[in-house]
Amino acid sequence: MYPPSIQNLVDRFTKLPGVGPKTAERFAFHLLKRGKREVTELTDALGALLERARSCAICFDFAENELCTICANPVRDPHTICVVSDSQDVQAIERSGAFSGRYHVLRGVLDTARGIGPDELKIPALLERAAAPDPRITEVILSLNPDMSGETTALYLAKKIKELPVTVTRIARGLPLGSDLDYADELTLGDALNGRQKI
Amino acid sequence: MYPPSIQNLVDRFTKLPGVGPKTAERFAFHLLKRGKREVTELTDALGALLERARSCAICFDFAENELCTICANPVRDPHTICVVSDSQDVQAIERSGAFSGRYHVLRGVLDTARGIGPDELKIPALLERAAAPDPRITEVILSLNPDMSGETTALYLAKKIKELPVTVTRIARGLPLGSDLDYADELTLGDALNGRQKI
Repeated sequence: MYPPSIQNLVDRFTKLPGVGPKTAERFAFHLLKRGKREVTELTDALGALLERARSCAICFDFAENELCTICANPVRDPHTICVVSDSQDVQAIERSGAFSGRYHVLRGVLDTARGIGPDELKIPALLERAAAPDPRITEVILSLNPDMSGETTALYLAKKIKELPVTVTRIARGLPLGSDLDYADELTLGDALNGRQKI
Repeated sequence: MYPPSIQNLVDRFTKLPGVGPKTAERFAFHLLKRGKREVTELTDALGALLERARSCAICFDFAENELCTICANPVRDPHTICVVSDSQDVQAIERSGAFSGRYHVLRGVLDTARGIGPDELKIPALLERAAAPDPRITEVILSLNPDMSGETTALYLAKKIKELPVTVTRIARGLPLGSDLDYADELTLGDALNGRQKI
């Protein structure tokens, strides 16, 4: 066994996603070797996170003020909401530069096996937003991962939102750029064929 | 871009060995989702590390007191030193239960390409220990990784220590338990044959 202060840090690191005991040991010994400065910088960054990071009051993305930079930006179209499961997805879509509306971060997807229902996510807030008179929402784009839980969540949301006078769309599925038709799985290929577009 | 407090933590995490931007993001968002308690526990563990972890004055393993638990243990044979490159190796050998002497942690291996010479490691301290009259060292076991830098370091140490009245040995190389002779590389197989033992 390592001395308690090291073992404790190793244990803490194993709580991070995808980090096993070996990797956690490497992290701890890396910090031990690098010394005070790197440890202090990490501690300070964690402290700042605790102190400053909060939820945007509208879209539930992480922010440092009451509103995130996107919700606070008057240039962004307030009538179109792009629904994503996680904060990282907002960044991915922003990088594409293809969307100029607002977001709504669900903070997860429906997963009945793990007891995650609509109320565990920011779904009630989304439905409230979609029904609100100002700003009037005209389109909700569902940008969830094309997997089991993502599809379930998308179908649930589509059903709920369709009760309102709001268009519901979902991001296209098909072959990714640079991929090989020959190696595509049959479901993706089916999606690509069904979603064919005029050129 | 993420808010500064998140981006800064992501940047800090990428300094850890084997952690790229994607993994660092996952760590940061995991902590954001888990909230205050997990962040505080990690911060406290880092603080305790800074405050309590130090070098053992004899073997340079990490310790919480002036001596590590092994050097402070009077039952351990003080005449045999097992030389390892890192603190993790001490734990690995301790788990084997096959060694009852003391250790010496070099804190790395010789690597001329990266400018790591004997003086950057705890080699002068090892030579001093090996030459000291009390406790008189009778055997130094070189337990370094069987790779290029490990071998270089072992040969360097063997040459230096052989000038003293001390036996120098090195841990055996051969086929690991459960391995397949058919798949062993030729150098390992050669080592295994050369190191054959009577049964």
